[in-house]
Amino acid sequence: MTTVSIIGNGNMGTAIGALVTEGGNAVEHLGRGAAPISGEIVVLAVPHPALAEVVAVHGPQLAGKVVIDITNPLDFATFDGLVVDADGSAAADLAAALPESRVLKAFNTNFAATLAAKRVGEAQTTVLVSGDDDEAKQLVADVFTAGGVKVIDAGALKRARELEAIGFLQLTLAVQEKTSWTGGFSLSA
Amino acid sequence: MTTVSIIGNGNMGTAIGALVTEGGNAVEHLGRGAAPISGEIVVLAVPHPALAEVVAVHGPQLAGKVVIDITNPLDFATFDGLVVDADGSAAADLAAALPESRVLKAFNTNFAATLAAKRVGEAQTTVLVSGDDDEAKQLVADVFTAGGVKVIDAGALKRARELEAIGFLQLTLAVQEKTSWTGGFSLSA
Repeated sequence: MTTVSIIGNGNMGTAIGALVTEGGNAVEHLGRGAAPISGEIVVLAVPHPALAEVVAVHGPQLAGKVVIDITNPLDFATFDGLVVDADGSAAADLAAALPESRVLKAFNTNFAATLAAKRVGEAQTTVLVSGDDDEAKQLVADVFTAGGVKVIDAGALKRARELEAIGFLQLTLAVQEKTSWTGGFSLSA
Repeated sequence: MTTVSIIGNGNMGTAIGALVTEGGNAVEHLGRGAAPISGEIVVLAVPHPALAEVVAVHGPQLAGKVVIDITNPLDFATFDGLVVDADGSAAADLAAALPESRVLKAFNTNFAATLAAKRVGEAQTTVLVSGDDDEAKQLVADVFTAGGVKVIDAGALKRARELEAIGFLQLTLAVQEKTSWTGGFSLSA
């Protein structure tokens, strides 16, 4: 039994939490305020601008834990770029801010509805995970594979740059109704 | 009737050419050597390192034409990054080298086998196109929609950065057998 703590009460946190329980593991839903964190895995299911606050409030509690960044660091003023360095990522920034944590990127290429349905069109929903800690990635893969989605190791944390590019493009396509919030990208075997 | 000239004789050029004829339009297959180019659309179906040579040989002939860059500018020495600027793209570089042409990015997120099959898993194959010339994008959409694939306008040429990130990640996943050369990403409505 793995416990997953989820910070953030939006539709992504809800959908991710449901996958955890459907896989037979335990969920702890937390708001953004200070509180004890019991999970080995902590999902920061907050918008990108809120990450700094989460680090400020919870940083020391996250030491040693597997921390999942799900954010898409869009420039919401222009919807035409990201606010992170062109050769970096929000996940890399988070890892730098939480050097004692095992930071992974995941779920940023998934819409909440496709996590809930576990399908994108006819395909099983794929969660792409990147990170530098293979054991942490395996733990996450075990929890969410049990929950009913496909989990693919997309490589080192450096690949979060590409995952954030996919998430960004997918958001621009959804906003323009070129894909839907119940659709988006899927990965075929 | 639109004529599409294809420079490059690899599996991508072959698959793209087949879509053109299946849609009732005309194909002209050219090698990389100097030759007249009759198509309104010219697909540079060559590997990224060959683009400079194509520009040197064919540059003046490409003035006024819709030129499609299909490349993924991987650093093949490391397979761990791209050789273009982090905030740029091969397509942006090509557009700078061919200022008289109407440069689009397309097909770099498709494997040849999924263009030939017109399916990725259960989904219709989607060709993502970016560029700054809406008329050129519409012409390309008309030709390849007639050929049996779905064509989605992915935005301005600036979005080639994200398309190249998708193409890069997809190649790394295929090489590691996390997806197959007959699979990869698809986009669901």
